[in-house]
Amino acid sequence: MTQRITTVQEMKDIVRALKKEQKQIGFVPTMGALHDGHLTMVKTSLKKNDITVVSVFVNPLQFGPNEDFDAYPRDIESDQEKLDALGTDYVFYPSVEEMYPKPLALSVKVNRMAEVLEGAKRPGHFDGVVTVVNKLFNIIRPDFAYFGKKDAQQLAIIERMVAEFNHSIEIIGVDTIREADGLAKSSRNVYLTVQERQEAVHLYQSLIKAQKRYDAGERNSAVLINVINEHLTKNTSGSVEDIAIYSYPELVEQPQITGQIFISLAVKFSKARLIDNIIIKGDNHD
Amino acid sequence: MTQRITTVQEMKDIVRALKKEQKQIGFVPTMGALHDGHLTMVKTSLKKNDITVVSVFVNPLQFGPNEDFDAYPRDIESDQEKLDALGTDYVFYPSVEEMYPKPLALSVKVNRMAEVLEGAKRPGHFDGVVTVVNKLFNIIRPDFAYFGKKDAQQLAIIERMVAEFNHSIEIIGVDTIREADGLAKSSRNVYLTVQERQEAVHLYQSLIKAQKRYDAGERNSAVLINVINEHLTKNTSGSVEDIAIYSYPELVEQPQITGQIFISLAVKFSKARLIDNIIIKGDNHD
Repeated sequence: MTQRITTVQEMKDIVRALKKEQKQIGFVPTMGALHDGHLTMVKTSLKKNDITVVSVFVNPLQFGPNEDFDAYPRDIESDQEKLDALGTDYVFYPSVEEMYPKPLALSVKVNRMAEVLEGAKRPGHFDGVVTVVNKLFNIIRPDFAYFGKKDAQQLAIIERMVAEFNHSIEIIGVDTIREADGLAKSSRNVYLTVQERQEAVHLYQSLIKAQKRYDAGERNSAVLINVINEHLTKNTSGSVEDIAIYSYPELVEQPQITGQIFISLAVKFSKARLIDNIIIKGDNHD
Repeated sequence: MTQRITTVQEMKDIVRALKKEQKQIGFVPTMGALHDGHLTMVKTSLKKNDITVVSVFVNPLQFGPNEDFDAYPRDIESDQEKLDALGTDYVFYPSVEEMYPKPLALSVKVNRMAEVLEGAKRPGHFDGVVTVVNKLFNIIRPDFAYFGKKDAQQLAIIERMVAEFNHSIEIIGVDTIREADGLAKSSRNVYLTVQERQEAVHLYQSLIKAQKRYDAGERNSAVLINVINEHLTKNTSGSVEDIAIYSYPELVEQPQITGQIFISLAVKFSKARLIDNIIIKGDNHD
């Protein structure tokens, strides 16, 4: 039985007891609406650690005023069933009041790394992410924490936070889990219309097309971006919001590709803005 | 023998081993130039914990551009001798490059609580303090951490950080240690001229005078501030920079005193700006 914990104090007491027993703790932070992407991370954690804690918390701080905080899908009973079926030890499910009992006296802000890509489109988003993840890390004190590579910018920023804040936590980036047709699994896919769902396959297909051009020797980012843009414009009704090639994990724009990069894109459909990316190990990378 | 540790990795490895042995860790963060005030905190920690770690790190981030970072007194050999004499287990003495190997990708900022009193005079100071203390807390992972009540605003802000970041650390505020004549011990006292040193006794004496008026029933802050101002102006050559009465630990100005408050003052002498304060439990306080 996955135990549901709703208060910071109870979670901390449990962690304290687990530490005393020298248990190795794995942690998967989520906003719920669990899909196979999340569950893959949970399974990875269950395999590697004595104890796995999954948090389910829709963090208001990382939503902009015009974003979908209220509409974000929530179903703790269904989430807990899924976690239970895997043998997850704990689900940490605090209220907003429990996590933010008072107005914040301190702010954690992400500098340059949040000013590009998704961060540029969503001001304050990554500040909200690091604020809550820092809190969760201190509450759960995991040995390993799992984040999806689908949110590649987030993963890079979290890794930077761990280094800079000197957390004693190892971050594991987990490969993006895709539907049979290649669409990256996302809690926001439920917002798609039937037609959009069919078109959405082209996000990944356009990335694969670019990857092939890269493999064939193309190193000019503008050319690769154009390949993607043409494919998306031709095959989807969504508006192409962002196609970019940045170094990874440094997050610096790369007009000409040398080292490890990631190609990312965002397409806005009628009710969902979907993102996807692929990370390409550079020529000089092992 | 107090062991001197200079790298984050070595310190973390030691902490990991100590945690495995279930040792209780006490931590006293300092900028070195250790005096009886620090040593009292170290002794308190030694009594209470299995292991005591003292950090000696002059944190550039908490000094303003026109402050005394370069001139700040440094003497690790003398500091270590003093720690050794008490039986301190570890002194953590990292370089600036060790603590800040790269430009900061994240900023920790203190909001309203840093905009008053010392924070108003020293923009960015408390941001630098919380940035380094958060790092040190994550490196040392103490059960108890000791801070002087002399820096009352700092103590209040650190306590707020611990609550908000959900650190599993108990903060212990240690009473201000004073010279025989009442001057609060401070690493900056060495900057005083002989005459200024004699005058400096009046910082505490003016606070005592105000406390007596409070005890006699005075609850109007302007009256108490005036008592202090007159005493300091009459008895010192320094310029009186700040006399204030704020609620504690909330740090809200109190024109009329009801709950727990602290009276703080700052006097600028030729080469040193000295601060002092007293905390007065309010009428409704236990």
